[in-house]
Amino acid sequence: MRKLVVHEVLADAAYQYTNGHIVSGNHQFTYPEIFVRCLKLAHRMIDLGIRPGTVVGVMDINSHRYFELKYAVSMTGAIIHTINFRLPATDLGYTIRHAHDEWLFAWTGFGELAKSMAALVPNVVWLGDLEGNSGLQYEDLVAEGSPFLPDQASKVNEDDTYSLFYTTGTTGRPKGIRYTHRQMLMASLQIAHDLGLHDTGAFLRADDVLMPLIPFFHIHGWGVPFIAPYLGSSLVLPEKSSPAEQWQLIRQNKVTWSNMVPTQLYTLLEEQTQENVELRGLKVLTGGSALPLGLAENASKANISLSLIYGGSDQLGTAISEASGLDGVERLVRLSSRMTPFPMVRVEIRDEKEQCVVSDGKTIGEVWVQSPWIPQGYLDETEQTQRAFHDGWFRSGDLAVRYPDGSFYVMDRLNDAIKSGGEWIAGSVIESIISEIPGVHAVAVVARPDPQWGERPIAFVTAENDVSSQVVEQYLYQAVVEGRLTKFWVPNEIQFIDIMPITSAGKLNKVALRQKKLT
Amino acid sequence: MRKLVVHEVLADAAYQYTNGHIVSGNHQFTYPEIFVRCLKLAHRMIDLGIRPGTVVGVMDINSHRYFELKYAVSMTGAIIHTINFRLPATDLGYTIRHAHDEWLFAWTGFGELAKSMAALVPNVVWLGDLEGNSGLQYEDLVAEGSPFLPDQASKVNEDDTYSLFYTTGTTGRPKGIRYTHRQMLMASLQIAHDLGLHDTGAFLRADDVLMPLIPFFHIHGWGVPFIAPYLGSSLVLPEKSSPAEQWQLIRQNKVTWSNMVPTQLYTLLEEQTQENVELRGLKVLTGGSALPLGLAENASKANISLSLIYGGSDQLGTAISEASGLDGVERLVRLSSRMTPFPMVRVEIRDEKEQCVVSDGKTIGEVWVQSPWIPQGYLDETEQTQRAFHDGWFRSGDLAVRYPDGSFYVMDRLNDAIKSGGEWIAGSVIESIISEIPGVHAVAVVARPDPQWGERPIAFVTAENDVSSQVVEQYLYQAVVEGRLTKFWVPNEIQFIDIMPITSAGKLNKVALRQKKLT
Repeated sequence: MRKLVVHEVLADAAYQYTNGHIVSGNHQFTYPEIFVRCLKLAHRMIDLGIRPGTVVGVMDINSHRYFELKYAVSMTGAIIHTINFRLPATDLGYTIRHAHDEWLFAWTGFGELAKSMAALVPNVVWLGDLEGNSGLQYEDLVAEGSPFLPDQASKVNEDDTYSLFYTTGTTGRPKGIRYTHRQMLMASLQIAHDLGLHDTGAFLRADDVLMPLIPFFHIHGWGVPFIAPYLGSSLVLPEKSSPAEQWQLIRQNKVTWSNMVPTQLYTLLEEQTQENVELRGLKVLTGGSALPLGLAENASKANISLSLIYGGSDQLGTAISEASGLDGVERLVRLSSRMTPFPMVRVEIRDEKEQCVVSDGKTIGEVWVQSPWIPQGYLDETEQTQRAFHDGWFRSGDLAVRYPDGSFYVMDRLNDAIKSGGEWIAGSVIESIISEIPGVHAVAVVARPDPQWGERPIAFVTAENDVSSQVVEQYLYQAVVEGRLTKFWVPNEIQFIDIMPITSAGKLNKVALRQKKLT
Repeated sequence: MRKLVVHEVLADAAYQYTNGHIVSGNHQFTYPEIFVRCLKLAHRMIDLGIRPGTVVGVMDINSHRYFELKYAVSMTGAIIHTINFRLPATDLGYTIRHAHDEWLFAWTGFGELAKSMAALVPNVVWLGDLEGNSGLQYEDLVAEGSPFLPDQASKVNEDDTYSLFYTTGTTGRPKGIRYTHRQMLMASLQIAHDLGLHDTGAFLRADDVLMPLIPFFHIHGWGVPFIAPYLGSSLVLPEKSSPAEQWQLIRQNKVTWSNMVPTQLYTLLEEQTQENVELRGLKVLTGGSALPLGLAENASKANISLSLIYGGSDQLGTAISEASGLDGVERLVRLSSRMTPFPMVRVEIRDEKEQCVVSDGKTIGEVWVQSPWIPQGYLDETEQTQRAFHDGWFRSGDLAVRYPDGSFYVMDRLNDAIKSGGEWIAGSVIESIISEIPGVHAVAVVARPDPQWGERPIAFVTAENDVSSQVVEQYLYQAVVEGRLTKFWVPNEIQFIDIMPITSAGKLNKVALRQKKLT
């Protein structure tokens, strides 16, 4: 490649790599084959009037079509809006209108939801089987295009906007963020570089077979559709698949590396069979929320080696857990909690006066991030942009402590943290301890207003019937005795619930829990 | 870091890494310590009048001073001219005048050579012990400066010129090449990324201890002074040391990774003792000239695992040998010869009509390279620039064949290759076979004018007394029988010489050999 422009990655792969395959459903392509499909698609898109700067919304599962659209849109100089189809329909419509999507490429499998969104945009292309729908069909576009690089492709520059995504804030409207070609490529590839050069649980190499379970709308599946062709690695796209089907894909395609949020890891482990446990060395990059130690232990028993990534849609990738020279439980604890910034990334933990806190593993501050790929801010949200983006730094709104060795531990969202008697209480620490109790499935600790302390923690738990409040409390007091927990942090109440509410990003919905009435 | 500017790498390391050490002679520094020394040095340089664009010549061995100057010059916005002190004195003076060096930082250990070069520039700073010299002393500058980042440092941009180097062409005057901050950082760090993500013999990880034996003037020691702080790795600087002293440094500092040209590897292996052979897994990146298989085998016996890098001062790093899934001899052959481009690099092997040759492992063409770090051209050499730099591509002047798997094999310099009866003969292939003969120390095959064929190959050999022309010829005809060599390629004559002439870059001096009279 000559410059950091997205489609140059695929062009290089098509020229260089003869072994890697892209597998999606019944389809299988080499890099040269899928590159030709992208060229044809891009040509047809330009014929249809897609121009540099046109916003092209894509609403699809992790399929070869989505992979192709990421590259074809780049070749046209247009902007790809990766639509979070898990948002409530009203928010979904809001993002499509706010982004001024002129085109929508939508999977027919979404049914009525896709149809109602299609009504909001002037031009629609249908992905997948078109039972009963009329309109442009994706495979026709690919079939009709010319297999040459469009002239426009070489005019795309590194600092042009490549894509647009809306964060799923727990309060207020989703906020739009633009990424340039350079920001998206550097941030994505730096995940691979970090994993290749450091002793992590999700250690990556070019001969790995990658299966991204992070949806392609979410920061492009954490960059995997760019990392795979960059390395010439094989890529398995899970499309819409159950955990049992995912295990089957892993076995069939000899998948060695995957990414997923902890909730997905939990459901995948629930589905494990003896056959799967015998798989050797599946490596998983997880993140998006704290990783309870209990879950990390269960993964370890299933021969899954984990690393935790820290980042987000408004900062992109920032840090990954590593454990150079450590073994056993020490290694597991470290990989499931302690973050080390990627090379090129500076992380500071700052207090309310914007001064760095002491690196003592105790003093809590806010995570500030600087890197070459910090975005410019939120689309049309001047006030929120000014609050979060300062002089090349991004204020994450996450609370963390820093250790003397330079690693840090993310405790909670500033908004989720509990302030009790003037001191921070990190719900995630309490959650991690409760998750160790046999029979506990999931746990969330949130703030509850308290006349005396301002706020006090309360724990919501889903568990087997034999797990009682007493069991949980005894376990927590044991942790206090062991020095793992401050007595003051033990929740005032343990509430058992049947189903844990989850946000569209697969995280625990703490807003919903905070509003939940006590039984 | 916010942008790809050299001193940002060290600033990040000083903030993030507490374990890595820089060892040089009796000195040992942590990253925070050496960063403060660089800050002080940069401040004092600015006080003394060094400005953005000032050319600062540096003539030093691989020491902590040279490491510091690479970063301090970056902080001032000036341009570092890394002077090749191995050039003949007239060429050396030519480069200093041609580059318009306003400052010279010279090691006193060079004695009269340093003094004569100092006479060519207005301002001189002496590095090392100053017996009898008057003038500014390096350690005084460091001692006198202020330990704060100079204002100028934040104004340096990615596309500003960072450094200047003169290629050591075998014909004509040395040619100057400028590198921007971005070009130098991307090219350097991509060596690390490639080594971390692919199955190479010089596989690199952050917990390696690095000792660069490639001189710091030559493309900044292939980027190692940037790679070490980028990873937080320990860095051992060999200063001026004999092969025996280098073994001692390796043992004392637990060095696990080094780089060197094949000639250095040869002399290092000559010095090996039983103690060294027992070292486990020293990894060496070698390049700059072809790696004879015999040398690779000897390295392997000494537990040294090798990869070959292909590149040069006018293209920077381009490709590294890798051997995914191979073992034993097959692995060794592959690692010592077959190049795979770095991710982001496009290599084409083109014929005289600039069309790609067939990837059949046989058809010879010229290596053309495209990457985000190809320099702009030669300083004040319009004609030579136009010949070598075309539309983002660099014409290397190297001959190679390409294999169906996308790897390529560099056979010879276009200028060194032998054209016999209208067909190319690659001297390096013949050299590699002769190098396998027990008792052969070094071999060079060059062209000799021939009335019938235009040119014919002739081999110059240094060897033990019991190696005769007959022995060599028999071995070559055996290789013909084995299908490893075309009969037509067997040299017309084998000439034994006492000492092999070497260029200032440590390569065989084929120009000198071509002019040598036959005995």
